[in-house]
Amino acid sequence: MGSLSTDMIENNPAAFPVNPLDPEEFRRQGHMVIDFLADYYREVGKYPVRSQVEPGYLHKCIPESAPNQPESIETILKDVQSHIVPGLTHWQSPNYFAYFPSSGSTAGFLGEMLSTGFNIVGFNWMSSPAATELESIVMDWLGNMLKLPKSFLFSGGGGGVLQGTTCEAILCTLTAARDKMLHKIGRDQIGKLVVYGSDQTHCALQKAAQIAGIHPANFRAVQTFKFDSFGLSPVELKKQVEADVAAGLVPLFLCATVGTTSSTAVDFLPGLCKVAAEYGMWVHVDAAYAGSACICPEFRHFIDGVEDADSFSFNAHKWFFTTLDCCCLWVKNPNALIQALSTNPEYLKNKATESKQVVDYKDWQIALSRRFRSLKLWLVLRSYGVANLRNFLRSHVKMAKVFEGLISLDARFEVVVPRYFATVCFRLVCSSDEINGGNEDVNEVNNEINKRLLEMINASGNIYMTHAVIGGIYVIRFAVGATLTEESHVRDAWKLVQHHANLFVALKAQGLKIV
Amino acid sequence: MGSLSTDMIENNPAAFPVNPLDPEEFRRQGHMVIDFLADYYREVGKYPVRSQVEPGYLHKCIPESAPNQPESIETILKDVQSHIVPGLTHWQSPNYFAYFPSSGSTAGFLGEMLSTGFNIVGFNWMSSPAATELESIVMDWLGNMLKLPKSFLFSGGGGGVLQGTTCEAILCTLTAARDKMLHKIGRDQIGKLVVYGSDQTHCALQKAAQIAGIHPANFRAVQTFKFDSFGLSPVELKKQVEADVAAGLVPLFLCATVGTTSSTAVDFLPGLCKVAAEYGMWVHVDAAYAGSACICPEFRHFIDGVEDADSFSFNAHKWFFTTLDCCCLWVKNPNALIQALSTNPEYLKNKATESKQVVDYKDWQIALSRRFRSLKLWLVLRSYGVANLRNFLRSHVKMAKVFEGLISLDARFEVVVPRYFATVCFRLVCSSDEINGGNEDVNEVNNEINKRLLEMINASGNIYMTHAVIGGIYVIRFAVGATLTEESHVRDAWKLVQHHANLFVALKAQGLKIV
Repeated sequence: MGSLSTDMIENNPAAFPVNPLDPEEFRRQGHMVIDFLADYYREVGKYPVRSQVEPGYLHKCIPESAPNQPESIETILKDVQSHIVPGLTHWQSPNYFAYFPSSGSTAGFLGEMLSTGFNIVGFNWMSSPAATELESIVMDWLGNMLKLPKSFLFSGGGGGVLQGTTCEAILCTLTAARDKMLHKIGRDQIGKLVVYGSDQTHCALQKAAQIAGIHPANFRAVQTFKFDSFGLSPVELKKQVEADVAAGLVPLFLCATVGTTSSTAVDFLPGLCKVAAEYGMWVHVDAAYAGSACICPEFRHFIDGVEDADSFSFNAHKWFFTTLDCCCLWVKNPNALIQALSTNPEYLKNKATESKQVVDYKDWQIALSRRFRSLKLWLVLRSYGVANLRNFLRSHVKMAKVFEGLISLDARFEVVVPRYFATVCFRLVCSSDEINGGNEDVNEVNNEINKRLLEMINASGNIYMTHAVIGGIYVIRFAVGATLTEESHVRDAWKLVQHHANLFVALKAQGLKIV
Repeated sequence: MGSLSTDMIENNPAAFPVNPLDPEEFRRQGHMVIDFLADYYREVGKYPVRSQVEPGYLHKCIPESAPNQPESIETILKDVQSHIVPGLTHWQSPNYFAYFPSSGSTAGFLGEMLSTGFNIVGFNWMSSPAATELESIVMDWLGNMLKLPKSFLFSGGGGGVLQGTTCEAILCTLTAARDKMLHKIGRDQIGKLVVYGSDQTHCALQKAAQIAGIHPANFRAVQTFKFDSFGLSPVELKKQVEADVAAGLVPLFLCATVGTTSSTAVDFLPGLCKVAAEYGMWVHVDAAYAGSACICPEFRHFIDGVEDADSFSFNAHKWFFTTLDCCCLWVKNPNALIQALSTNPEYLKNKATESKQVVDYKDWQIALSRRFRSLKLWLVLRSYGVANLRNFLRSHVKMAKVFEGLISLDARFEVVVPRYFATVCFRLVCSSDEINGGNEDVNEVNNEINKRLLEMINASGNIYMTHAVIGGIYVIRFAVGATLTEESHVRDAWKLVQHHANLFVALKAQGLKIV
C-alpha cells in the first residue's frame, strides 16, 4: 500500500515507480472502486433520477487542462462523487422508468470486468480463440432459449454475432442485403433501392439507410393506425411496395419491429414476411427491447413468423441484465454479411483463417477491433440460470400490470395503447368541458397538459419517465425494468403521478388557465 | 456471504432471494474478480502468448445449452481459468509484440468499471449530462496535449468525440464528406465519388467506403515506394486524382495515415492536404497507432500539416493505456457530421436539446446508444499525468531502439524500413549463394524463410510477433507497447529470435532444403 504516494511523486516525477499494470496496485485500487460502486448501488435510489445540473456545469468543476503530475485514486474518486454523480441520470435507480431500461447486474458487470481485464482485441479467431468460440456457443445457447429456428444457429448453417447496438446490426444487415441485390441488378442501380419500416420504427433504420447510401427519397416510413395498435400492416406495406415497383424502384429491405420504442407495438411478422418474400426483400426483425421477454414461453408468440425473416436482433443491454453494449444478432446467411463486410489484408493472414475451420467475426461487423462481449452474456446466463432470468422478466411485467391496474382505478387517466410487456403508455385526460369552456382543441390541450405534467414530475427528481407521441397523442411512458425496481417503487411512482395530477386539478379549481 | 448458496437455490429455485444488483453480493463477487485479475496480471508472463488451442476446443468443455439453475461465481471463475484462459492470446503479456499493443492499465480498467457500473446510455446530453460534458472537456484536454490546431477543439468551433474504433471514425467522416458533396452535386452522383488512400492504408478505409455505398471501382489504393519509406506521395496522389477527374469522376475523400499498420510509415500531410484542397476533398488523418506518441514534443512533427486536414483520429486503446474500445476523433466542422448522422425522433425530444446549448453525441456517430467512455480516458490522464504518460511512451520507443540495436549487431538480419516509433520491421536475410546454390528467386525464398521462422517462434509460445508484406518483402514486426513489457523481455525476445535463426543455419549446414 501507499506506493502511489502522491506527495512523493509530485515532488519527484522521475521516481514514479509503479508499472500501470502492477498487480498489487491494481488489486488495491480495484477493491476501492468495487466498494465505491457497491455503495453507489446502495444509495442510488436516493439520488434525483434525472440529473438536475445545468448545461455547462462541469466546466466549472474541472481544470482547463490535463494534470502534468499523477493524482491519487482517492482524489479522483472524491471528484467522481462530487462532480460526476450529480451529472448522472441514474439509469440504475429503482425509480428509473424512462426510455427503456439499461438493466445492469452483478454478473454482467463481472463479465465486463473480465473482458476489460483480459483486454484482448478479438478481430479474428487467432487473436483470441476463446473470444470467438465462446461467442458462437453463447449465441447458439441464446438462440435456443428464444426458440429461434435452427437456420439462425451455427448448428443449422446460420449464426449469431454480438454487435454493439441495434444501429450497427441494422447497418450490417442492410449493407449485406444491398450488396446482394446490387450484385444481381448492377452497382449503378443503388439509387433505385427502397428501404421500408413503419412510422413507429426506430430512427436507427433511417440512419442506417442514410449511411449505406440509400437515396433519402427512397426511405419509407409506412403509416400505422390505432386500430392496428400501431403495428405495421402487411396490407399497407404491400400498397407501398407496389407503388414503388410501378415507379421503377427496387424493394430491398424491411425492418419489422417487435416492441417499438414509442409504445412497444408489434408488427405482424407472418404477413409482412409474405409480402417481402413476393418482392425478394431482406427482412430484419428488430426486437431490441421485447426480444428478452421472448425467452418466456408465454411471450414467444410475439416473434412467431421469425422463421421467414433473414435476420433477428435484440439488445441484451436493454432488458437482459447485460451491461451496455451488447446487441445479439442472428442471420440465416452469414455469407451475405461476410461478402459485404470482409477484408483480408496481409497483416491479418494466419493459418487458422486459411484452414476455413474458424469464424472471423471482423467480417460480420463494421469495425475490425472487437471486445470480448460474450463473457458478460455467459456470466449472466450462468449466474442467474434460465429459470430465474424468466422470473426476473416476469416480475417486471407483473409490476407494469400493477401500474396499469392503478391507472384503471383513477378515472382521470387512460392507458392509451395495449400493454404487451413491461411498458405502460398512459395519459391524464381532461374532457372538452373541463378545458376552458370547450373552446380549444381538446387533444392539443391534453397533449400540452401531459407534457407539463411529465416535466413537473421529472423535475421533482423522484422518478424519471419519458414520453412519446403516438397517432397524434402525447403519452407518458412508464417502462419497468431497472434491476433494483420493486413493487413498492412502482406504487410510490403512481402516488407521485396522482399528486402532480392533483396540482393540475387544484389550479383548475382556482380558475387558472393551466396551459 | 453464503446468500447465493447454490445448493439451496438448485433445490428450491423459487427461493432465489438476491436481487441481481444487491450491493453486498456485488461487493463480494466484485472483490473476487479483482483478485482473479490481479493474479492474472502477476502470472500472465508465464502463459504461452499466442493461444495454443485448436479450432473447436471450447465446444468440448462447455455444455450444449444454458443452465436452467444459477451457478456460483466460484464455479464460473474456475471455468474461466481452465477453459477461457488457455484460449486467450495474451495481449497483456510482457512478451506480446504482435500487431499493435492493446495497452491496458489500472486507471483505464477502473474508468471502464465506473462506466460499466453507472451503466448510463449517453445518447444525448439529458440522458446523463456528465457523460457528454466530461467527453467534451477531455477531448479538448487531449487535443491540447497533441497541440492540435484550435479549430479542432470545442474552444475553437470544432470538437472531439469518442468513437469505438477507427473504422467507425472513418465511416462517420466519410459519410459526412459524402453528404456534403452530394448536397452540392446531386444525390444521383453517388456513383462518381472517389475515395483515396495508399496501398499501405488500413483496410478500414476500404470497408468504410464499401459500407457508405461508394462504387467499389472508385476506391483508390495509390501505390507507395521504398524510396518514400512507403509513405503516400503527393505527386502520386495528384496523378491519380487528375486521371479520375479527366474520367469525369469526383474526388471525395483522402485518408492519410501517420503510422501505417504494416510498417508505421508516415504519409506526408502538408503536400497531401495541398492536393486535396485543390480538388475540394475531405482529408482524414488516421494516426490510430502513432497519434499517442505525438503528445511528446519530439514526435509532434509527424502530424505537422494536420491543420489543413478536416478530421484527425487516434486510438487511445492501442498505445495510450485506455482499454478497448476508445478511438478519439476530432473534426473541424461538427455540423457536417451532424447533418449526415442526426436523427430527431419525438421520443428523444427534450428541453436541453431544444435550447441548443448542449452537444448530443448521438449525432456524431453511427449508433444511438453510447457508453460513458470518457471516464476511462479521464482516469488515465489524471492517474498518470501528462509527464508520466510521455515517459511511458518514450520507454517503449527506447526498448524498440534497443531491439533495433541488437538486430544491427547480427549480420544475418536487417531492419527493412526506418523505425519511427516503437515498432521494428526486420527479417533474416540469406544471400543468393547461401540459398540452394542460387537457383531460386532470392526474395521469394527469404520471404518463405521468414514466414517459417516467425511461425516457429510463435508456436513456441514464448513471444508473439506478427508479419507484414511491404513492397513484396515479408517482414517480421516487433511492436513494443504492452504495458508490462520491460527491457529484459525485449532482450529475451531477441535471444529467442536468434535461437530459432540458428536452427535454420544448422539445418542448412546439414545440407537440408530449408524451404
